[in-house]
Amino acid sequence: MRNNRRNDQIRNISFKTGATKYAEGSCLIGFGDTKVLCTASVEDNVPSWMRGTKKGWVHAEYAMLPRATSQRVRRESVVGRQSGRSLEIQRLIGRALRAVVEPTAMGERQVLIDCDVLQADGGTRTAAITGAWVALRLCVDRLLRENVLEDDPLLDHVVAISSGLVNGVALLDLEYSEDSRADADANFIFTGVGNLVEVQASGEGKSFSQQEFLDMMAMARSACEELVALQKEACTQTVCTL
Amino acid sequence: MRNNRRNDQIRNISFKTGATKYAEGSCLIGFGDTKVLCTASVEDNVPSWMRGTKKGWVHAEYAMLPRATSQRVRRESVVGRQSGRSLEIQRLIGRALRAVVEPTAMGERQVLIDCDVLQADGGTRTAAITGAWVALRLCVDRLLRENVLEDDPLLDHVVAISSGLVNGVALLDLEYSEDSRADADANFIFTGVGNLVEVQASGEGKSFSQQEFLDMMAMARSACEELVALQKEACTQTVCTL
Amino acid sequence: MRNNRRNDQIRNISFKTGATKYAEGSCLIGFGDTKVLCTASVEDNVPSWMRGTKKGWVHAEYAMLPRATSQRVRRESVVGRQSGRSLEIQRLIGRALRAVVEPTAMGERQVLIDCDVLQADGGTRTAAITGAWVALRLCVDRLLRENVLEDDPLLDHVVAISSGLVNGVALLDLEYSEDSRADADANFIFTGVGNLVEVQASGEGKSFSQQEFLDMMAMARSACEELVALQKEACTQTVCTL
Amino acid sequence: MRNNRRNDQIRNISFKTGATKYAEGSCLIGFGDTKVLCTASVEDNVPSWMRGTKKGWVHAEYAMLPRATSQRVRRESVVGRQSGRSLEIQRLIGRALRAVVEPTAMGERQVLIDCDVLQADGGTRTAAITGAWVALRLCVDRLLRENVLEDDPLLDHVVAISSGLVNGVALLDLEYSEDSRADADANFIFTGVGNLVEVQASGEGKSFSQQEFLDMMAMARSACEELVALQKEACTQTVCTL
Amino acid sequence: MRNNRRNDQIRNISFKTGATKYAEGSCLIGFGDTKVLCTASVEDNVPSWMRGTKKGWVHAEYAMLPRATSQRVRRESVVGRQSGRSLEIQRLIGRALRAVVEPTAMGERQVLIDCDVLQADGGTRTAAITGAWVALRLCVDRLLRENVLEDDPLLDHVVAISSGLVNGVALLDLEYSEDSRADADANFIFTGVGNLVEVQASGEGKSFSQQEFLDMMAMARSACEELVALQKEACTQTVCTL
Amino acid sequence: MRNNRRNDQIRNISFKTGATKYAEGSCLIGFGDTKVLCTASVEDNVPSWMRGTKKGWVHAEYAMLPRATSQRVRRESVVGRQSGRSLEIQRLIGRALRAVVEPTAMGERQVLIDCDVLQADGGTRTAAITGAWVALRLCVDRLLRENVLEDDPLLDHVVAISSGLVNGVALLDLEYSEDSRADADANFIFTGVGNLVEVQASGEGKSFSQQEFLDMMAMARSACEELVALQKEACTQTVCTL
Repeated sequence: MRNNRRNDQIRNISFKTGATKYAEGSCLIGFGDTKVLCTASVEDNVPSWMRGTKKGWVHAEYAMLPRATSQRVRRESVVGRQSGRSLEIQRLIGRALRAVVEPTAMGERQVLIDCDVLQADGGTRTAAITGAWVALRLCVDRLLRENVLEDDPLLDHVVAISSGLVNGVALLDLEYSEDSRADADANFIFTGVGNLVEVQASGEGKSFSQQEFLDMMAMARSACEELVALQKEACTQTVCTL
Repeated sequence: MRNNRRNDQIRNISFKTGATKYAEGSCLIGFGDTKVLCTASVEDNVPSWMRGTKKGWVHAEYAMLPRATSQRVRRESVVGRQSGRSLEIQRLIGRALRAVVEPTAMGERQVLIDCDVLQADGGTRTAAITGAWVALRLCVDRLLRENVLEDDPLLDHVVAISSGLVNGVALLDLEYSEDSRADADANFIFTGVGNLVEVQASGEGKSFSQQEFLDMMAMARSACEELVALQKEACTQTVCTL
Repeated sequence: MRNNRRNDQIRNISFKTGATKYAEGSCLIGFGDTKVLCTASVEDNVPSWMRGTKKGWVHAEYAMLPRATSQRVRRESVVGRQSGRSLEIQRLIGRALRAVVEPTAMGERQVLIDCDVLQADGGTRTAAITGAWVALRLCVDRLLRENVLEDDPLLDHVVAISSGLVNGVALLDLEYSEDSRADADANFIFTGVGNLVEVQASGEGKSFSQQEFLDMMAMARSACEELVALQKEACTQTVCTL
Repeated sequence: MRNNRRNDQIRNISFKTGATKYAEGSCLIGFGDTKVLCTASVEDNVPSWMRGTKKGWVHAEYAMLPRATSQRVRRESVVGRQSGRSLEIQRLIGRALRAVVEPTAMGERQVLIDCDVLQADGGTRTAAITGAWVALRLCVDRLLRENVLEDDPLLDHVVAISSGLVNGVALLDLEYSEDSRADADANFIFTGVGNLVEVQASGEGKSFSQQEFLDMMAMARSACEELVALQKEACTQTVCTL
Repeated sequence: MRNNRRNDQIRNISFKTGATKYAEGSCLIGFGDTKVLCTASVEDNVPSWMRGTKKGWVHAEYAMLPRATSQRVRRESVVGRQSGRSLEIQRLIGRALRAVVEPTAMGERQVLIDCDVLQADGGTRTAAITGAWVALRLCVDRLLRENVLEDDPLLDHVVAISSGLVNGVALLDLEYSEDSRADADANFIFTGVGNLVEVQASGEGKSFSQQEFLDMMAMARSACEELVALQKEACTQTVCTL
Repeated sequence: MRNNRRNDQIRNISFKTGATKYAEGSCLIGFGDTKVLCTASVEDNVPSWMRGTKKGWVHAEYAMLPRATSQRVRRESVVGRQSGRSLEIQRLIGRALRAVVEPTAMGERQVLIDCDVLQADGGTRTAAITGAWVALRLCVDRLLRENVLEDDPLLDHVVAISSGLVNGVALLDLEYSEDSRADADANFIFTGVGNLVEVQASGEGKSFSQQEFLDMMAMARSACEELVALQKEACTQTVCTL
């Protein structure tokens, strides 16, 4: 039996919207003890290969503070480059958000999403995506209020949740102590209407059956509605601070 | 209708085993016009965090030659780092192979898998994984023959195939002209007994339904047996050269 | 007249000790809207040039989140190196703390101080130093409690405050809107007994007289006692979270 | 006595023209077991210092696959930079080709030559140059056929061959086992009319006499006609694949 | 008692103006055995963030030759980046010079100051600043003579000197053997009229009293007039060479 | 007719031995206006691949100060890497010196040769080699005097000189104004007994005949005795300074 949770139960989810003063949208999200600060910044430019297309772009970056984890890891700027893991996660965040953005409605500008993990207890990428969507939503709301944008380019919610196989049992929203002994690990990203945006599943030195995979996906699918409801509620909260 | 193939048909698959003279195992694999040179090199050391564990390791690296593609891309060593895409793919290849390797049977040594794409027409990561397994198999066979290893650490086959949604239709083993207009793109990695090792599915600016996902997975699952049979045949062929 | 403050008045100072779950010592410090997360991590090793000396070391690193500021700045890990400004500040933080540490009492281990600016409204380096001392104090207290250390190596407090010349008038603890139009800018670091640890003063495209410099120093000197009292109070507070 | 060759005899030379599908010109050249894939790519730009000069440029890059050699070497993109050896060789290749190119006839465009060593058994730089010329010739032929170019900018052949002193005896076209015990090592690059384009000779921990140098040069000079004839033949062959 | 000097006495100061043939201004300055080659180079561009402002810029770079010191240090270009110390010093040199430059009188161009330490015996940053001013003065004189500039943008002298506390005694212009055992170390930068441009003081593992600091500043202030007189004399000397 | 020199005449050659205070051997060499500071530093270690071989090593590094040339070039440590040209030259310097060093007589230590070009007017690599040999000779003499070495590992002189073809005429020891319009450029490195150590000849966008090459080599050969005599004289001079 896990730590006071049912196998298909997500951790306590918290949103502090408006967490930072300068960003056009921001949210400090908590999935249990995992805390990720997500900000959305607007820039009046796009990557060079998009210039002149009249389309917008959403770019994401992901990093962990050196002591977000149980053991301190070396700062990426000191090492001189982002790790493969960080690059993989930030590419995932960007793709997930772009799946629900209509680029022509954004105009030729980009929103830069920064997801900085302040504390990591498993599920940082799913927390980052779920929080990044809120930061993006608040940012777009502001651009709509200020008439920078005419039409809403953000077409639907995006939420993400992990699941895994521990001792042959599927568990939802793994915390670190569970994740570190899982035989397989999966991340599912859904839209508000329940479509998939991204699926990632990996055996950790083992393989897994299609049925085990489907069990994990079903569990994730149910949690998605809950996360969407929480995002909706968070976006109507008044602004708070760090 | 696609280019002379049924929707659930893989391209012509070719293996040139023993393609290079020095590597302990090697294979030039072709998935249609996609050509990947896979080599397996043995080193009597392991990453520093594994020292003293009496376990072995499999590490993979992936790169494309600058003009493997229709448009030349900048050489990564000139840029000064591997791209996020390359890092993501080589992490995937390594994880996939390690899922069928028994580390204690390897002893404290590592096998370095190099997957260099000589020509890219879609599906380079699935070709790389399927070919890398052959290079690893040949390498392990040699270590067994030379009595460096006592027990076979390679427990099963690993094969990979892509599928995608193009105009709402699921297609197997996409070539570049199909991949570039797909709405979703998935890669499935299976073992010889039909278990999953890794699943990756992404919407390309769109979401997709669970049913569409399951259709893609079913198609990939059927192709897996064919690929396993081809790997078996390739491993018994006589040695050839570039 | 400045924003509701006397010229020689510091901003509202806040400390959230125990802000993170894993670090041996931590503190989220606020100097007004400037917020810096400071953590202290213990490692059982020292830089290579110190091995065998039976002495300890304190190393500091400093960074700003990309959107800590009014305009987003590029992430240093993406650029591939720390900026000159970051390196300069982290060298300053490290030197300041080492001035009150007895290295032989630490044994051959090091404490790594990470100062990550979550929000920047001027005075990030002085906030970082003042908060880093609290994180270090809490960390050392823990090592003493756990009998890892026998004698307290942290000999005194360290606090820091900025001052500057704006339109010929000396102001204490500049916020960004003041700092950006200052003619000179100074940072003073004091110990608990009122000694100096570090002085930095720079004209911003201008020179300044010795008298103006002495005025700034006097103002900083008075604020020091207040900061020391606040540090003392913070170290006795109960643990809280982000 | 060497391995079934006279001292002044080159190894078996093979050309696979049209080896890759996308490049404007390509050639997989073999000097015995040394195999180098050479491609020529056209870009409608020139280095910034040449803009507006109405002249073209030929740039070359050289790399070895990690397991091209008997011992695997670290991948340059993982190390984060090209080795001094690679840079030196690619500068040599570029200079050699530019010696027979009329830049004004190229127009303001550049041809990028990529020489990737798939297998290395000595003489990789001479094989690369000899193969690169074929790739460039095929590329230019195509641009002439497509009327992109009016006049042929490629004025003559370029061929290269190594020679060395082993136990006081001059040998032509050293393979690795000879090269590794040579007292001196030389590379000669000639045009089709027998002029020199580049000479490089180095003592390997020893000096050598002018007469020994002249012996090596004479031997190389004779081989040049043979190589030019082989290039001519290769350029008329039908297209093949990897 | 120190090495043949009073405590408040600077070392023998030497200037070789016109030390290099190409630079618009140059000076090989000696503070005792510390030798720094300072050159000023004019470029008709400014950093991108200044374009269109009609203002000029002064940028400085600082480096030490690998064997400038008693123990050879690794070459920064081999390491792949400038050290934190080098970056800190070159930022200091640039700020110091800009404090006496009227940017609008320079027009939209920049002067690049290179300070390369050929031999280091303490006080390299103060020697560099004092010599860099001479190189800049000579450079500006030349631009005025050639009518590139109409009005003199260099408003005053800039000189720098170090002082430190050794065994509780304040010493001026420390040489390496003194610096390495100092308890505190300070650098003062003054203008010709005796204003401050920059103050830096650091305890070396210790704190120091305000009075000790004031003693060091007083000593530095007196030396400043001497240095200004020497700069004036140097600028009227005839041109010499390395 | 060239600038007051016969075609086969070298420029005024100057040696300032003992130019720096710390290096075990040093020499500021001038070939006309080309000035290179060469230092030799002894370290009690060897590259990792040589450990345990009881042999020594000579490693060379080469760089130009940013304003050594007519136009300032970017500092390599700011760019983040050494240029291909610098790497090529320093590899050449190292090979040339190692050709006359008996590694077993050095014991397991290395000499690091730093060649820093203070002013560049053509022929920097030949000046560097000729000066580096003097620095190495002085360094070895010191190690012999101090009984660190028993037997002299430096077996012969090494000198280097350039020649080139300008308007079809062979010229010796090109200065920059000649080099920049040469059709071919060659560097010859000889030992004291007149053997070759290294030959490098390149056409500059052109080819050249074997006879032209032999003319350049003959000219270089004659100059070699003169340079050897000058080296001998320099090594007996008393120590001077920068």
